[in-house]
Amino acid sequence: MTMHALSPDALGALQDAVGHNGMTADAVGMAKYLGDWSGDHHGAALAVLRPASVAEVQAVVRLCASLGLGIIPQGGNTGLVAGAIDIETQNSVVISLERLNAIRRVDADNFVLQADAGCILQTVKDAADAQDCLFPLALGAQGSCQIGGNAASNAGGINVLRYGMARDLILGLEVVLPDGELWDGFSGLRKNNTGYDLKQLFIGSEGTLGIITGVELKLFPKPVRTETAYLGLASFEAAVALFRQARRASADLMSAFEIIGSECMALARLIDANIVSPVEAPVHVLIELSASAAIDLRTLLVDFLGEAMESGQVIDAVLAESGAQAKSFWAIREGLVEGQAKRGYHVRTDLSVRISDIPALIDQARRFVALEHQGWLPLVYGHAGDGNIHFNVLPPEALDEREARARGADITAGLYRIVHALGGSISAEHGIGRTRHRTFMAGLAPVHRRLIGTLKSALDPQGLMNPGCLLPATETVP
Amino acid sequence: MTMHALSPDALGALQDAVGHNGMTADAVGMAKYLGDWSGDHHGAALAVLRPASVAEVQAVVRLCASLGLGIIPQGGNTGLVAGAIDIETQNSVVISLERLNAIRRVDADNFVLQADAGCILQTVKDAADAQDCLFPLALGAQGSCQIGGNAASNAGGINVLRYGMARDLILGLEVVLPDGELWDGFSGLRKNNTGYDLKQLFIGSEGTLGIITGVELKLFPKPVRTETAYLGLASFEAAVALFRQARRASADLMSAFEIIGSECMALARLIDANIVSPVEAPVHVLIELSASAAIDLRTLLVDFLGEAMESGQVIDAVLAESGAQAKSFWAIREGLVEGQAKRGYHVRTDLSVRISDIPALIDQARRFVALEHQGWLPLVYGHAGDGNIHFNVLPPEALDEREARARGADITAGLYRIVHALGGSISAEHGIGRTRHRTFMAGLAPVHRRLIGTLKSALDPQGLMNPGCLLPATETVP
Repeated sequence: MTMHALSPDALGALQDAVGHNGMTADAVGMAKYLGDWSGDHHGAALAVLRPASVAEVQAVVRLCASLGLGIIPQGGNTGLVAGAIDIETQNSVVISLERLNAIRRVDADNFVLQADAGCILQTVKDAADAQDCLFPLALGAQGSCQIGGNAASNAGGINVLRYGMARDLILGLEVVLPDGELWDGFSGLRKNNTGYDLKQLFIGSEGTLGIITGVELKLFPKPVRTETAYLGLASFEAAVALFRQARRASADLMSAFEIIGSECMALARLIDANIVSPVEAPVHVLIELSASAAIDLRTLLVDFLGEAMESGQVIDAVLAESGAQAKSFWAIREGLVEGQAKRGYHVRTDLSVRISDIPALIDQARRFVALEHQGWLPLVYGHAGDGNIHFNVLPPEALDEREARARGADITAGLYRIVHALGGSISAEHGIGRTRHRTFMAGLAPVHRRLIGTLKSALDPQGLMNPGCLLPATETVP
Repeated sequence: MTMHALSPDALGALQDAVGHNGMTADAVGMAKYLGDWSGDHHGAALAVLRPASVAEVQAVVRLCASLGLGIIPQGGNTGLVAGAIDIETQNSVVISLERLNAIRRVDADNFVLQADAGCILQTVKDAADAQDCLFPLALGAQGSCQIGGNAASNAGGINVLRYGMARDLILGLEVVLPDGELWDGFSGLRKNNTGYDLKQLFIGSEGTLGIITGVELKLFPKPVRTETAYLGLASFEAAVALFRQARRASADLMSAFEIIGSECMALARLIDANIVSPVEAPVHVLIELSASAAIDLRTLLVDFLGEAMESGQVIDAVLAESGAQAKSFWAIREGLVEGQAKRGYHVRTDLSVRISDIPALIDQARRFVALEHQGWLPLVYGHAGDGNIHFNVLPPEALDEREARARGADITAGLYRIVHALGGSISAEHGIGRTRHRTFMAGLAPVHRRLIGTLKSALDPQGLMNPGCLLPATETVP
């Protein structure tokens, strides 16, 4: 691994392409673009470019292509898999989309919103809300992640159950290709069945095929009714069975079905010591129903939970009597994530299995940790309705971080073996990036691997787009 | 255009690959595979192969690749754009999937169904229904179209509004690639964010990148409540405004919002002379709400329509009081399609525009026909909630078919100009096939055209998969 350097000519040309405020090449200025949110990874870059227009993105990409420089597209840099940080090839520039941050158009009549890639997700949500619409993508990082990054990483979150992943919410994309050409895939149409659906290539490709500069999004009617309940159950089996019944009983108006192992309460209390669990049970479920019309969701929920309690499936249930109480339920779910971050380094996974295999996954994973990694604390929570479990493991508090990281890698590998044997996925929503690409590629059938390589070579023949992300790095020499 | 012939050796090898009942090479036996549903197109083939297993599909594809033969994958052959009939290159074999027709697995616990590509759509729907689930894809041809063809063409239909196109209903695919290798993209997972989503390439690619041999589908809870209403409105403007309100007022539980110009009633009466319009108004709307739980959809609909009638937006409304009455409403919608087919050749389009542009599209198209093609009768109906309008035009009854077809081509071109100027699409759901590929390619930006060509060359370098479909034909010589 050699750190390259840019010639003064190259630096000057890049500077000219983005103007006075558009480039940083010194260590201090670049720092915030080179560390990730989790603090687990630090990268390097020859320069950080901050184009302020689509034309400037094109100019920078053309320059990079001619100089043979790797290009790391970067949104809010809130990813968890080092997808926007060059930790391997060291011959790249970061292109941050942060200055490309306008809402272009909110068309409430057609339930469509167009935005620059660098718009903060929360800004997009607020712009939709202001027109009495909902943009449903919702995740912890929504105050700082960018919509272009959400598209490139096919972001998930808590509302996937009802509204789908980022992929399902995108009507059109605008993309600067690796040769600097612009593909304008905006149409405003709900239905357009004309040949290959090119936007699908770029969604979830983690910046390896082009730079998304604009997105066209589907909006939904804003919910006017919401009901939230916090449930206690005896087991994950019971939670999975409950989910199945809830889908039917809620008429698919369920916007969240989160499971939380009771061991996570302690983590939530690290954020707010006053948090009290609304129920006493080994497994907690946070369920939310919402509707854009005056539907009596309360009766629907009460009837359904009444039956589930009578049959013994649900041990305890608390229905939110106010918006404030609903918020307090969500504070547990959000607090446990922040709480574990406070504990510093920990094993973080994002597994998915068939919904009916969730209990087996959790059972096997817990046994594995208990038997082979004593003293480590497993935490289970996730979007059960999507089969998506975050099985995380905290190191013993006394353990030195260096040792913890080494042992953590073993634990991660063990968990991947378990999920692999169940036919599951090592990434339900976080993506592959640079932390999982070896495991990812190793787990693929040769045909699948070949298809990925074929696409990458066809669309990015120079291998300049996000080198080392998703696919093994091919170092390019200027 | 030269008709090629197969050598006895080649014929023998193909016959061996599919066994005794698997091949037809004589004109009589091939006839039903070479004409399309509309009767508008007739193709040619060197042979029709009917493999009975995935391994046989692979064997046939390998042989075709070595012989340099074009491959026309064929499902139920119910398409409307000659996507499964070779009308140009004449050096191809048809591979019919009809013998690959098993339901592989219905996993109601996980709301997943796996099926062979050759399963009839209705069979898939019935298998889901038997497990109290819904597979929502619904279209006129569902009794004969095949699920693999639905995936390859990204089929639409009447429930797109609520459940999406075929693309949105597919969890996984199994595909034989142009070199005969098998890509197994089944996972059973709801969420799997690991690299390029390869299935997206094949969905809607109209058989030009590989042969779909199996599909893994999303199921939904079966609706237990349905409400249907037939409305009369003064204008398409009013219908579009009503749709917007209906989305909110129905909490997105609306499963259909069909518009029908009153001129279509005469067509429906060709199928059943007793059909009486439930309303008297220039524009009809058929609206359906459904839910898998005991939600009072009736009150929701009555309240909403009450307001709309009070404000004058809806002139007349009839709520179905029974399943039979709801069926009679749908009989109008289905009858008008069959009725126009009875009239023989007619201009058939499948346009889409932004929902708010529907009135402009219809207005401009009607003026165009009235001014430039007197005596031709425009018929307007469509899935208004998707912006999808079937603007069809019947020739004067006295006109000779040959003349009608020539004039029809001019009318189609004129309608495409109108939709193009509105930023719409010439194919909302029917696809491109061989009837629209020139218009399609001519309407694309050079970058878009190049990307399509790049994908095709990368995945099918010999150009053997469905030659002449979607992309201009490149004749291959053995």
